[in-house]
Amino acid sequence: MQTVLLDPEAVTASTEMGEVIDAVESAFAAYADGDTQMPAKSYIDLPQHNGDFRSMPAYIETDDWEAAGVKWVNSHADNPERHGLPTVMGTMIYSDPETAFPLALMDGTGLTRLRTGAAAAVATRYLAAEDATSLGLVGAGIQAYTQLEAIAQVRDVQTVVISDLREEAIEAFIDEFAGEFDVREGSITEAASCDIVSTTTPVTEPIVEAVGEHTHINAMGADAPGKNEIAFDVVADATIVIDDYEQCTHSGEINVPWSDGRLDDDDLHGELGDVVTGRVDRPDPDGVTLFDSTGLAIQDVAAARVIYQHATENDIGTEFALVGTDT
Amino acid sequence: MQTVLLDPEAVTASTEMGEVIDAVESAFAAYADGDTQMPAKSYIDLPQHNGDFRSMPAYIETDDWEAAGVKWVNSHADNPERHGLPTVMGTMIYSDPETAFPLALMDGTGLTRLRTGAAAAVATRYLAAEDATSLGLVGAGIQAYTQLEAIAQVRDVQTVVISDLREEAIEAFIDEFAGEFDVREGSITEAASCDIVSTTTPVTEPIVEAVGEHTHINAMGADAPGKNEIAFDVVADATIVIDDYEQCTHSGEINVPWSDGRLDDDDLHGELGDVVTGRVDRPDPDGVTLFDSTGLAIQDVAAARVIYQHATENDIGTEFALVGTDT
Repeated sequence: MQTVLLDPEAVTASTEMGEVIDAVESAFAAYADGDTQMPAKSYIDLPQHNGDFRSMPAYIETDDWEAAGVKWVNSHADNPERHGLPTVMGTMIYSDPETAFPLALMDGTGLTRLRTGAAAAVATRYLAAEDATSLGLVGAGIQAYTQLEAIAQVRDVQTVVISDLREEAIEAFIDEFAGEFDVREGSITEAASCDIVSTTTPVTEPIVEAVGEHTHINAMGADAPGKNEIAFDVVADATIVIDDYEQCTHSGEINVPWSDGRLDDDDLHGELGDVVTGRVDRPDPDGVTLFDSTGLAIQDVAAARVIYQHATENDIGTEFALVGTDT
Repeated sequence: MQTVLLDPEAVTASTEMGEVIDAVESAFAAYADGDTQMPAKSYIDLPQHNGDFRSMPAYIETDDWEAAGVKWVNSHADNPERHGLPTVMGTMIYSDPETAFPLALMDGTGLTRLRTGAAAAVATRYLAAEDATSLGLVGAGIQAYTQLEAIAQVRDVQTVVISDLREEAIEAFIDEFAGEFDVREGSITEAASCDIVSTTTPVTEPIVEAVGEHTHINAMGADAPGKNEIAFDVVADATIVIDDYEQCTHSGEINVPWSDGRLDDDDLHGELGDVVTGRVDRPDPDGVTLFDSTGLAIQDVAAARVIYQHATENDIGTEFALVGTDT
């Protein structure tokens, strides 16, 4: 039997962003409904290489489909400078739950950006004002691209304010999207006063000091203890929705004020899946809302399913009989 | 950058069994020395498909090399009958610890059999009589082949007694090895009275009721709570060496008498890595010894390293740029 190999171009060609967002939304709902299995991420820490590996297996069952797989992903901060490689690379094995045959092996680097954008879009769909038209982006790295692409699927984004210290990153971003949106460079404060703002930086000291009166914040950057991007006053005044309690309190945007006791359970509105399923009320979109995203294995599996379906329907990818199937 | 794809034939062509055994021995030693990282296997249980997935990440550091990777493997008991697929299939991602780049993706089905054979060979090297020449095999399935191939690397195996209920499995096995060894069919008791016996069956009620006076037993089959192959009297009289305390007491050959209190810590001689490193004495080979193998992720990573090295040195495999490396 053949496994489909999907390289970065094949993953991009098989991505229908709207369907990825819907699949990730279904995954969050299934998680809230108890219809997923997601063992805790397993870490291998390699301080001698300033990096780590993470193994992220998951299974999802919805009314319409089931899906399983594992993403093997790393974070090696010295990669760009020392090796000309990305800090984060990933490999996704997407498997048939019924037989466990590996249906696809795909680039997990692009997949990670895609499913992260999709999570921000799901949060934006439920937490931002319906009539939001402006999107701020703090950080013009590769994640900013999928933030815009995904969020533009759920709100009528007209204007985009992009903020970064790296002028060439700003220019590349504007070049990419100027034809589609009114994109301009701005300060962090200008970006953060938009109807929606997504932050995708690796900072450990907060850089967003204030937001608009009705801003919805997608806090995407913090992914380790000690990292946070948003000033505590802003976080404390926002209605906080998290992707996962264990992960967010350990390594999400809220982990720093959580660890020193400035935030506790009473400050959390709920998990995104609870909002999606209606177990928890949708917060008032007239106030400030904050989505704390750490990234869940179910997002990867849900996104991988959409990509695999499109790839096989459109003959995208390379077939290869990697795994022995002789009985 | 290119990842090397190694299908079952490429894995076989890249296997130098002696080196795999030495690498697996080094991995057991590194484990005992505290120079490995091996998070607990993550299980996804799918009772609706009578199966499960397991994610097995590991990292090994020895004086000479380091290696990392993850095996994604399953056990779906209905696969052969319902789908014409093996019960167990695996996919191995073998990664560079320094950059995390996935150096190779390989068939994990054959790899699993190979590293299981190698573990039995390491145990046989340290626990069986030096002058052992007869090997019994209880179970003539695919695992029996790698048991013989591996054990023949560490002892001068002359005669092989193979026992199985399936006559066609016996015939196939004898066809394969008759040119190399004196292979004959025998009862379980005949197989178990050899100098060495390896059991590779999925039974839940013991089938080996007696062994020879000096037999070394490789108990390979039990891999889940409730499974065991060897009668309690035989186990109780043997010097017991295990691959891993947590895994063996939970799901290895000893799990059944352990769970009902017939065995406890005092009955265990030690872990194989402790014997390899000399922390624990080599048991007297004149007595009966039993190696309880559950299979460790470090075995997979160690075996994958040997295969990857041979594949790249001999231009075996297919190069494919699966993972995005644009920074």
